[in-house]
Amino acid sequence: MISHQLLVRGGFIRESTAGRYFFLPLGMRVHDKIKAIIKEEMDAAGAQEMISPVLHPLELWKETNRTKTTGFELMRVKDRRGGEFALGGTAEEMFVDVVRKMNLSYKDLPINIYQFSTKFRDELRARGGLLRVREFVMKDGYSFHIDKDDFAKEYKSMADAYTRMFKRMGLATHQVEADNGYIGGEYCHEFQVEHPEGEGRFFVTDDGSYVAHEDVARMKLEVINPEEETKLFQLIAQPEWVKTMDDNVKHYGKDKRFFLKNVVYRATSGDIIIVGIRGDLEVNKTKVEHALSLVGQLTEATDEDLVAIGTKSGYVHSWGHTFVTPRMNPVGVPCKVIYVADESLKSVRNFIGGQKEETTDSINVNYGRDFKHEVEADVAMAIDGEMAWNGAGILHEKRGIEVGNIFQLGYHYTNLMKNAVFVDRDGKTKQYYMGCYGIGLGRTLATIVEQYHDDRGMMWPTSVAPYQVSLVSLRGAEARAEEVYKLLQDKGIEVLWDERDISPGVKFADADLLGMPVRLVVSPRTEQNVEFKLRSEKDAQVISLDEAIEKIKAL
Amino acid sequence: MISHQLLVRGGFIRESTAGRYFFLPLGMRVHDKIKAIIKEEMDAAGAQEMISPVLHPLELWKETNRTKTTGFELMRVKDRRGGEFALGGTAEEMFVDVVRKMNLSYKDLPINIYQFSTKFRDELRARGGLLRVREFVMKDGYSFHIDKDDFAKEYKSMADAYTRMFKRMGLATHQVEADNGYIGGEYCHEFQVEHPEGEGRFFVTDDGSYVAHEDVARMKLEVINPEEETKLFQLIAQPEWVKTMDDNVKHYGKDKRFFLKNVVYRATSGDIIIVGIRGDLEVNKTKVEHALSLVGQLTEATDEDLVAIGTKSGYVHSWGHTFVTPRMNPVGVPCKVIYVADESLKSVRNFIGGQKEETTDSINVNYGRDFKHEVEADVAMAIDGEMAWNGAGILHEKRGIEVGNIFQLGYHYTNLMKNAVFVDRDGKTKQYYMGCYGIGLGRTLATIVEQYHDDRGMMWPTSVAPYQVSLVSLRGAEARAEEVYKLLQDKGIEVLWDERDISPGVKFADADLLGMPVRLVVSPRTEQNVEFKLRSEKDAQVISLDEAIEKIKAL
Repeated sequence: MISHQLLVRGGFIRESTAGRYFFLPLGMRVHDKIKAIIKEEMDAAGAQEMISPVLHPLELWKETNRTKTTGFELMRVKDRRGGEFALGGTAEEMFVDVVRKMNLSYKDLPINIYQFSTKFRDELRARGGLLRVREFVMKDGYSFHIDKDDFAKEYKSMADAYTRMFKRMGLATHQVEADNGYIGGEYCHEFQVEHPEGEGRFFVTDDGSYVAHEDVARMKLEVINPEEETKLFQLIAQPEWVKTMDDNVKHYGKDKRFFLKNVVYRATSGDIIIVGIRGDLEVNKTKVEHALSLVGQLTEATDEDLVAIGTKSGYVHSWGHTFVTPRMNPVGVPCKVIYVADESLKSVRNFIGGQKEETTDSINVNYGRDFKHEVEADVAMAIDGEMAWNGAGILHEKRGIEVGNIFQLGYHYTNLMKNAVFVDRDGKTKQYYMGCYGIGLGRTLATIVEQYHDDRGMMWPTSVAPYQVSLVSLRGAEARAEEVYKLLQDKGIEVLWDERDISPGVKFADADLLGMPVRLVVSPRTEQNVEFKLRSEKDAQVISLDEAIEKIKAL
Repeated sequence: MISHQLLVRGGFIRESTAGRYFFLPLGMRVHDKIKAIIKEEMDAAGAQEMISPVLHPLELWKETNRTKTTGFELMRVKDRRGGEFALGGTAEEMFVDVVRKMNLSYKDLPINIYQFSTKFRDELRARGGLLRVREFVMKDGYSFHIDKDDFAKEYKSMADAYTRMFKRMGLATHQVEADNGYIGGEYCHEFQVEHPEGEGRFFVTDDGSYVAHEDVARMKLEVINPEEETKLFQLIAQPEWVKTMDDNVKHYGKDKRFFLKNVVYRATSGDIIIVGIRGDLEVNKTKVEHALSLVGQLTEATDEDLVAIGTKSGYVHSWGHTFVTPRMNPVGVPCKVIYVADESLKSVRNFIGGQKEETTDSINVNYGRDFKHEVEADVAMAIDGEMAWNGAGILHEKRGIEVGNIFQLGYHYTNLMKNAVFVDRDGKTKQYYMGCYGIGLGRTLATIVEQYHDDRGMMWPTSVAPYQVSLVSLRGAEARAEEVYKLLQDKGIEVLWDERDISPGVKFADADLLGMPVRLVVSPRTEQNVEFKLRSEKDAQVISLDEAIEKIKAL
């Protein structure tokens, strides 16, 4: 990623070990400005900063069962007395724990408390410089409410605060409906900055009224052949050369949509999941995990898995598979085969396929009549150009970098953790209704560079620039430069003075690389004036220092 | 500790697990203000903030051998790829590592870089609330110099900055010569705030020209009986009832100073250390460790240790002990008995003792004539009322809380870590000469409370108060209070408004507990005025809001 190259070259960051970075003084200044903007907007929205220990007692994570279910690998450590701790990856349990110990009443609610703290993720692969790391500072906030309605107001307020704070940093964000993964709760949104190489993939309608991450985006799937009568289920002969989907398309002269496709997964328990889907669509694994409440627990089935249910790749039936060689799950219960039907199975009359053998296959297969699965859900990957499920418009695919997220948690944590209750108006104790709100600071910083740079270097927006001004003094103007340096500082302007005794060319190149919004040059030729140039513009002008100061203050 | 009680009662902090604390919003505000003051003074002194990862690659700690020698128990963690990390307890290695990778030249020096980051200490006992914890935010700074002289300037500059920053927080500090413990280097100073229950014990002369921690404080030990001739060494009979030092004093009619005393330690290697000292003095174990370069490795000898060298408690000889039952150290070398002579052995002619058996003992024992130890050092605990070793004045014992420390590191780390070099003016690479500088933020916060409180609660100095003003509104004045609240905020005054619908008495008591510098009361009786009261004074006065604002701004 270009952000990584520029940040390293400019001396903003240095790698310690893979995925763990030093922020050097220049990088630290940007990090602090991002932090200050987040803090201002959080405080303005009525949230309050606090901080929790980095080492979380592992018992708390056991209370919510997240020692098993987290998507990131939780790092653990023991102290010399045998106490077990998690290195904080996110802090829902800690914040519920501190709040439940406060014995609050409805009068104290709502509260929204947040922290900036180092988070640890034992990622298998760190990549993209600051974009996916193993250690980073996160702003994580948690809100506690008397009920769903009160929470809804806060969720909106946080969404607005996020949009505002990113905008102040120069980032235009999409508020994208997303999957809540290992956090729990019912719905959530990611704040995505469009970027062609971003890890996130999402869909937006033209009017922006529907914006959804690929893991939740839904298409409108109307029946594609409503005019067709449902025909009699038949088992027919097939030439032996017909093996793949493409062979089928060629053989029957019908496009992929008319074929049944089965995609097989294996759960960590050993269970086998067979997902039936329309031939032209791909399965979104996250949607399947969500439909089965098996978040983070599915992997592609292996040949061995297929053998265990008596078949092989390309010959999985849409019904009837069970284990031919029994398998036990970790708690000693026999593993099951679970069939899942994607909604698309309802969009075609007279499917081809479903019971393919070497020289036979089934045709005129109708979902609901000839087979029906215990789980029905939307588990298809959305496609660019299709209509959104709610008719809001055509879906356009985008890629982006996720800089923040907000989650409805509802009663997820307060159900799992004992005594997470307040005293309501009627004197009864009730569970808190919760939300949580995160932003990764380093990733935000890198995203700003991704958005603001050219082939000469970084171009920091004024709001987060490490300094407003790069002051470049040329040989013979050192004394005047020192005057200018002090004057600017007296005016409260942050200025980085390059007083090195090296060639002007190197200094100019470095000023461009570091990317302060303004470059001022003081040389014997500028006399009592200064040469003023915006990083974003080509041309410089020689103006009085007063005028320059005015221009800087107006940025 | 009272600070702990008040901080918990006031809702500033909450314990998570023993020695690990949440800072709640009120505590966080104080923590941030302390941080801001430290940052201002560090930056003004030319230092630059950055930050290192919390997880330090363990190889770095192995390079300096500190995986074995640290005084605190280092916490370690492995990641899923088998990488080993230390949870940062202090960050000398990390900062040397990042600086050595920069390939600096003498032109770039000196540099002083610092961070605020969470530190981990696996203390056996956490105590005193925030005073001794297992996890805390530390400001740790590291400076890199071309040589000793350049470092000396920085050391002085940091000492002055520390004195200034603590003063701004309301803390008067002693700059105390101290032992450098596990950090390495040759000298260091602690910044101690006097406190009767402080963990630190140090000595100050009347004019303050000599201030030294008990682990380094030295007395002037002149010969106490110079008029006496040295007499012939004799082994004489002793009644069997003479067993202890007190028995000896009674039997011989001479005070403790005339007796030889031996104190025995065991090193982690298994070696036995016998320290000879004048009978009236106590041994300072840290001094012994320092003299033998066995920092953190000595414990009191057990009965078993004494048996191993052929003796028992009270009958240790001042010479001649060796292992009667051989013992091997962990690397398979036979353990040794090491004798250490305190300087005080030179201050008495004709000692009694040294070879005590059941019914005999030696007298007229003269150090240097009758026995001499391989190690001679000052290992005695200083005593209140004695002269300082350099004649600077009489030593007065004090107790205090250590809020900061500064260390000369010299070449300690740059010798141990490869390539920790810069290119000097002559084109040759030379090792950095280093110093380091620490402050614990939580401990500083608690120390401020220890200094500023009364029986009603905390009394925050304005510079670190969570808010300048506690605004208390009484029933019937809510609207006016809201006006006042907004006006104060518009004027940039931090104000905490207690708008709870409870009795005035509870509100006043809470305002006193929380300890903002100013209490403003708005009641139906104050009309367009406010009741103004300083937390530190008894009497309130009703004045105009403008006048109150002026007074607050002048604080």
